[in-house]
Amino acid sequence: MLAEIVTIGEEILIGQIVDTNSAWIAEQLNIVGVSVVQITSISDDREQILDTLKQAASHADVIIITGGLGPTRDDITKQTLCEYFDTRLVMNEAALKNIERIFVSRGYALTPVNLAQAELPEACEPLINAQGTASGMWFEKEGRIYVSMPGVPFEMKGLMQDYVLARLAAINNKVVLHRTVLTQGVGESFLADRISKWEDALPANIRLAYLPQPGIVRLRLSGRGKDKNTVQQQLDEQIDALYKLIPEHVFGEGTDTLEELCGRLLRERNLTLGTAESCTGGYIAHLITSVAGSSDYFKGSIVSYANEVKEQLLNVSAQSLNKYGEVSSEVVNEMAVGAKKILNTDCIISVSGIAGPGGGSPDKPVGTIWICVTTPGATQTKKFVFGDQRERNIRRTAIAALAMLHKALLNH
Amino acid sequence: MLAEIVTIGEEILIGQIVDTNSAWIAEQLNIVGVSVVQITSISDDREQILDTLKQAASHADVIIITGGLGPTRDDITKQTLCEYFDTRLVMNEAALKNIERIFVSRGYALTPVNLAQAELPEACEPLINAQGTASGMWFEKEGRIYVSMPGVPFEMKGLMQDYVLARLAAINNKVVLHRTVLTQGVGESFLADRISKWEDALPANIRLAYLPQPGIVRLRLSGRGKDKNTVQQQLDEQIDALYKLIPEHVFGEGTDTLEELCGRLLRERNLTLGTAESCTGGYIAHLITSVAGSSDYFKGSIVSYANEVKEQLLNVSAQSLNKYGEVSSEVVNEMAVGAKKILNTDCIISVSGIAGPGGGSPDKPVGTIWICVTTPGATQTKKFVFGDQRERNIRRTAIAALAMLHKALLNH
Repeated sequence: MLAEIVTIGEEILIGQIVDTNSAWIAEQLNIVGVSVVQITSISDDREQILDTLKQAASHADVIIITGGLGPTRDDITKQTLCEYFDTRLVMNEAALKNIERIFVSRGYALTPVNLAQAELPEACEPLINAQGTASGMWFEKEGRIYVSMPGVPFEMKGLMQDYVLARLAAINNKVVLHRTVLTQGVGESFLADRISKWEDALPANIRLAYLPQPGIVRLRLSGRGKDKNTVQQQLDEQIDALYKLIPEHVFGEGTDTLEELCGRLLRERNLTLGTAESCTGGYIAHLITSVAGSSDYFKGSIVSYANEVKEQLLNVSAQSLNKYGEVSSEVVNEMAVGAKKILNTDCIISVSGIAGPGGGSPDKPVGTIWICVTTPGATQTKKFVFGDQRERNIRRTAIAALAMLHKALLNH
Repeated sequence: MLAEIVTIGEEILIGQIVDTNSAWIAEQLNIVGVSVVQITSISDDREQILDTLKQAASHADVIIITGGLGPTRDDITKQTLCEYFDTRLVMNEAALKNIERIFVSRGYALTPVNLAQAELPEACEPLINAQGTASGMWFEKEGRIYVSMPGVPFEMKGLMQDYVLARLAAINNKVVLHRTVLTQGVGESFLADRISKWEDALPANIRLAYLPQPGIVRLRLSGRGKDKNTVQQQLDEQIDALYKLIPEHVFGEGTDTLEELCGRLLRERNLTLGTAESCTGGYIAHLITSVAGSSDYFKGSIVSYANEVKEQLLNVSAQSLNKYGEVSSEVVNEMAVGAKKILNTDCIISVSGIAGPGGGSPDKPVGTIWICVTTPGATQTKKFVFGDQRERNIRRTAIAALAMLHKALLNH
């Protein structure tokens, strides 16, 4: 089953927004066994829409259309769809009820413009939009499926998840399951070397995708087949084998983040956390507190950017700063001891390093970072040498520090 | 002059990457007076490439092609371009020298795969890629321009800026200039109301674009014409008028960020800064320290997530916490006083609020934030009520706090 994604609207063509919808749709379609052969972005233009749909029908079985359905602009898209499918707009009761429901909940009065959103092509099956007033539309014509949805990302995602993906999977008569393993502390190419034998021996119905981010590589395994249990069992067996190959690098699955996983473990173990940050400048605390409910275990942070703050608040000795330098095992250890005392927590992450672009030396080039993690009864200190980009160095330091904490908490 | 952007490669079609290149190219083309009528993403497939180029030529004057030029995959794109332009691959000396230069600088030996990257279609004008080994290619055929570039964003941007944009502007016989004004503290629709008369009276050759981000709206004014000085003068006059309409909301121009502008003012005025953060959890310190060289003026931060830390480190009184609550004018003021003392800085930003999703009450709903900014001789405290999304609330709080500091520093 082949698909084309068509986006309608000026915003993408003038570069005002990046088309994140299509990437998400493509990823989701792939998971249900539908391959995207083309993505086309066009403007709200009758002729261009008709021409693009005709072209799309010549190389795809499923045409997913997003955008062009805002209350002030929907005439052209809906009218043009009517023309393409040789049908007319009629008032749809279910869509009208949905619009009324949304307006009542927001306390607004309905206007004629909003009422017109309940008029839909007679030939379509409406897909009621739980998140907004523009309905999705499902058409079938000459053996092809056409789905039209609003371009607002969360409305489009809701319609895809509520209706479209499950239907396409069923029509495709395929089960597609996937598991995503999250790894840390190893680059994509080294990881590929480590698991190459396993990867080469994967059955033909199981596919591996590498999805790298700074400091993290996600490994997504997708399995296809007729029977759900069989595919699930195959996937589980392969993932078990993968865990055994790289046990030190796997830290989670799916959409887990290190800050969430650490938070869960801290809550389970009834432990509190604080950070003492130099080169990351508060970024680790920011990641930890981006998790809702983190106040249950996170007490605070000392961002000691100036050495004066390291000395006076964290009680780092002037002697260590002079003798070993602020980027040293000794200083991150003293930072951890000082922070644990004044923040009064069970666990501490402390970091000091040279984020760049300035401040490097032959001994300690830009990207040199020291991290210390203390949990009750255990302290670990490690050196890393990352690259020369400030933003990436800050991000990779935070990921490495959270990974050290995660491992320490698992062993606690 | 109309353009189509064609991206070649699997990564976008399987949703592995978001196509940020096309948005950037579209924005840049618009600035030089070229309108993008379509963006098409296809795979590395000979027939699909030929078919797409033919289609593109039927509705565009300029076809911008990215991707498909990696060392392991370029055969198909380059061979297919040869077929389309009825030409053949020949070794290009300038491209070869560029590849050798890059390999020498990286200390690697040339391999046959890399040498093959210097083979280019005879009919093209090579655009030498200062950032990488894959050359850009400029073709002309039947009155249309075709440009093929690698998909690596910084290589593509380099080629666009080094060659493509200036040439298209010259061919277009137009000067296109732009100025972007950055505003803060007012939503897009309210801003539009405030400046609607000015906007309606803009000359026909000047266009306004609203580019909103959380907490910030960028207003981009683009002027087109034949004469550079005339267009520049028109733009400057309009921008002067705009400044007078919304003086309290404009904070900068172009690619300025509030954290950079604050940094510049702090350095000029020889002042130091620290933060005391509750709901933002270190995010303000992170933004400030994301600017290279910020250690010149930023000394550190106390992230006082727990009230215990507010009391013990920042010396916030238990009485204020009990009587007014941690999200109050009194508490942010005491946080600022305490932080100024222990961080020993000239300026302090302190914030406390309810980021959500939990913790709201009828009095203080989620999104309620207090911010205090102190500079030598002046202290300002303000309340904001943002929305119900945690991530946006954190971001908007940081922007509002930096905007307050920026104004205070300007008045200092």
